[in-house]
Amino acid sequence: MTTMTDVPANAARDADFSAVDRAAVLAALAAVLPAHGLMHEEEDLRPYECDGLSIYRQVPLAVALPDTEAQVVEVLRICQTMGVPVVARGSGTGLSGGALPHAHGVLLSLARFNRIVTVDPRSRTATVQPGVRNLAISEAAAVHGLYYAPDPSSQIACSIGGNVAENAGGVHCLKYGLTVHNVLRVRAVTIEGDIVEFGGLGLDAPGYDVLALLHGSEGMLAVITEITVKLTPKPLLAQCVLAAFDDVIKAGDAVAAVIAAGIIPAGLEMMDQPATAAVEEFVHAGYPLDAKAILLCESDGTPEEVAEEVARVRQVLEASGATEIRVSRDEGERLVFWAGRKAAFPAAGRISADYYCMDGTIPRKRLGEMLQAIADMETRYGLRCMNVFHAGDGNLHPLILFDANVPGELERAEHFGSEILELSVALGGTVTGEHGVGVEKINQMCVQFNEAERATFFRVKAAFDPKGLLNPGKAIPTLNRCAEFGHMHVHQGQLAHPELERF
Amino acid sequence: MTTMTDVPANAARDADFSAVDRAAVLAALAAVLPAHGLMHEEEDLRPYECDGLSIYRQVPLAVALPDTEAQVVEVLRICQTMGVPVVARGSGTGLSGGALPHAHGVLLSLARFNRIVTVDPRSRTATVQPGVRNLAISEAAAVHGLYYAPDPSSQIACSIGGNVAENAGGVHCLKYGLTVHNVLRVRAVTIEGDIVEFGGLGLDAPGYDVLALLHGSEGMLAVITEITVKLTPKPLLAQCVLAAFDDVIKAGDAVAAVIAAGIIPAGLEMMDQPATAAVEEFVHAGYPLDAKAILLCESDGTPEEVAEEVARVRQVLEASGATEIRVSRDEGERLVFWAGRKAAFPAAGRISADYYCMDGTIPRKRLGEMLQAIADMETRYGLRCMNVFHAGDGNLHPLILFDANVPGELERAEHFGSEILELSVALGGTVTGEHGVGVEKINQMCVQFNEAERATFFRVKAAFDPKGLLNPGKAIPTLNRCAEFGHMHVHQGQLAHPELERF
Repeated sequence: MTTMTDVPANAARDADFSAVDRAAVLAALAAVLPAHGLMHEEEDLRPYECDGLSIYRQVPLAVALPDTEAQVVEVLRICQTMGVPVVARGSGTGLSGGALPHAHGVLLSLARFNRIVTVDPRSRTATVQPGVRNLAISEAAAVHGLYYAPDPSSQIACSIGGNVAENAGGVHCLKYGLTVHNVLRVRAVTIEGDIVEFGGLGLDAPGYDVLALLHGSEGMLAVITEITVKLTPKPLLAQCVLAAFDDVIKAGDAVAAVIAAGIIPAGLEMMDQPATAAVEEFVHAGYPLDAKAILLCESDGTPEEVAEEVARVRQVLEASGATEIRVSRDEGERLVFWAGRKAAFPAAGRISADYYCMDGTIPRKRLGEMLQAIADMETRYGLRCMNVFHAGDGNLHPLILFDANVPGELERAEHFGSEILELSVALGGTVTGEHGVGVEKINQMCVQFNEAERATFFRVKAAFDPKGLLNPGKAIPTLNRCAEFGHMHVHQGQLAHPELERF
Repeated sequence: MTTMTDVPANAARDADFSAVDRAAVLAALAAVLPAHGLMHEEEDLRPYECDGLSIYRQVPLAVALPDTEAQVVEVLRICQTMGVPVVARGSGTGLSGGALPHAHGVLLSLARFNRIVTVDPRSRTATVQPGVRNLAISEAAAVHGLYYAPDPSSQIACSIGGNVAENAGGVHCLKYGLTVHNVLRVRAVTIEGDIVEFGGLGLDAPGYDVLALLHGSEGMLAVITEITVKLTPKPLLAQCVLAAFDDVIKAGDAVAAVIAAGIIPAGLEMMDQPATAAVEEFVHAGYPLDAKAILLCESDGTPEEVAEEVARVRQVLEASGATEIRVSRDEGERLVFWAGRKAAFPAAGRISADYYCMDGTIPRKRLGEMLQAIADMETRYGLRCMNVFHAGDGNLHPLILFDANVPGELERAEHFGSEILELSVALGGTVTGEHGVGVEKINQMCVQFNEAERATFFRVKAAFDPKGLLNPGKAIPTLNRCAEFGHMHVHQGQLAHPELERF
């Protein structure tokens, strides 16, 4: 999707920084960075104007590409002294605009921090720089039979630093946890230029859990320069169960039943019929096209464990009304089962001019209700929606299909998306499962959190960054913004979110 | 141990609050609490003068025992307005003095918050009040085949609120995680009296991870009023492997080898010969008394999983030089294997007038080195030490045996303990694994964290509690205190921690 809309207004973003003296900032940065580490010409800045959420674009004042931690310290000290915003960036694959540059700020790319410092098979850890790609860690650990478990779809390209900033998940996070559950220690530089380390090789560390706090903080608290991750033994075997259902509600309930039976599969994904149809045409995975929904349920471990778990999964799925069950017979068939699921986003791109990927999370037991509500919204907004879910952890990725060249469709898609997110909150879930808040979901944070909770976030932010220079305007809406957001909806003379009244 | 020593001095603790007007505070509290919810007579206060770390004692100004969240809000508003310290308390079983009262403060007991609000087998969660006992959650969930996994030794008595405050662990936390990994959501009251909720039923939540931040914060950020925990299916089978070693270093290395082989046992505990001898005499578990160390390694799951894992564990232990391996043949024998381990603390109490339990954590691969260093310290300090470890996660519980009635032994025991903790840090570990910092380990925090890191903690604290009223003087040492601590050691004319120079 290449359409541009206005970046959501945010007081902390739009105010205060227009007085930044561009020439003075460039001169100060040039004094601490090598020539190849500072860019300020329009054509050099252009590649950094957006991340994976390309509907919002903004070129920064300058791009800094430090080679060393000492240079990061100097850049941050300059920004702190001169009052200049700093937006840290990994690989720029984020989907919520978390790395969107600031017009008056420095885009601090960690791309050159791409060194794997150590891989220690004995402690089953790897220490890496933040610009290392997610998959590169697993590649480096493979010789020891180990891998790094969290696997966001972008794992070929996304950086581990960005994974920490967004607390990234992936298909396997149901069993193996999010990024925060797989990172043992981070080293970071504060906006004042102090070097700090939190966490360690032990299971717990004393003091406040700043390690966890940095996860998902979207570059707003500190700039990470080194990360120690936990490595996981590669399972001896993985096998995938594909189940078809003649009803989406039944499929949603089957997901809850699997988990309620005490099974934690390595992955538990769901696709509805429009999604299955779109990907089948694209990758020919052999999916049952008459099914209203399919589930993919992966089991991994020793052969004995897998055999035992697959038998139990089959039993639960049958009891939940599956109309067809197939178990992958070999690694080739397993990969074919997954090929369709992994092609869902490009498949949406093939059948629709544009699509808008949502990322709400709901309690598993509400999956059926949410699917019904989305079907109602399709009718009301006059737009189709393909549903692809990390069903096991209740993380939804509805793909709203639209054509930005048809007047009104973009706006309808945005409202459709907002309604899904706000319903997620009403059902006891959240506005983001793994893509982060960034600029995209900043309004919905007002629905998710009350004023005291948002005030807590602001105070935490101020504890690290009193001047508000680290990634201003992202993730945490200003109190004023939420007042306006609420007001706007009441002003239109109707209940903004009639769905919310139903539950 | 019932000996008393001086509570470590701490500027934030000892200053500022002497001007609190006792009569005015009592009058204000009496206006918002029922008569049975406020105590201020010496004999009523006495039972609250210490927690499980009984060497430090202090009666509070008053004890508040609210029945409702609204009363908690009122108590906190009064304390905020009048500048009165507040120390929250669960069951008082903590081992680091985290719930030690403040002389000029209110001891806020959550004992009446003892209601299990809901147990939901479908979402596998329970929502409970903070005063509910850890084991009571598992008892309530048992009918659904579920339990609450973290199992601190005190689980019969300790409260889930205290577990969150200290981020409690237990024998099974190696496989099932610490408290922070098993809590989905908390509801809390800020010192201003605002009600906030963080986390939720989804796997992740947007915004800063305040849920994690509250874990281990020792009541210094907010007062928790409701907790939603994750429930875990009860395994079908558990089996325990007992292995004997003729050398403690070999046993330590065997622990690292088990984990490095990709096995995550349900529990992996180690005891050295003095510990084995002490408990054998007490509970007659049939432990091999000629072994220099024994390991207990538990496997749980389906019968197939357990059989497969036990076989692999046996293989690794044999390769690591175990001189004898026994596998529990039935549930009765499994419980006997564990009975000795669980009796280690009372057994120490039987053979020694006093003992001091340490709680450092080190990387597993350094276990052998640490055991050797502790043996050296026994000679230097002239005190015996029994070693009982949550070996799988590198969490040490050395029990230093001494007699407080012998002049100098208490001081030697304290120095012995400090040296263990500081060596833990030098080996890449931490000063506490699961008992918290409280007042006990506040000096060692100066060794663990640099000035910028400690400044970060202070700012986080101020973000929640600008006046520093919530549990002042615990967990986070003042910068001034660390300066004094460092100075004191240099002043004695020698390197304070010669061990630190070795590694």
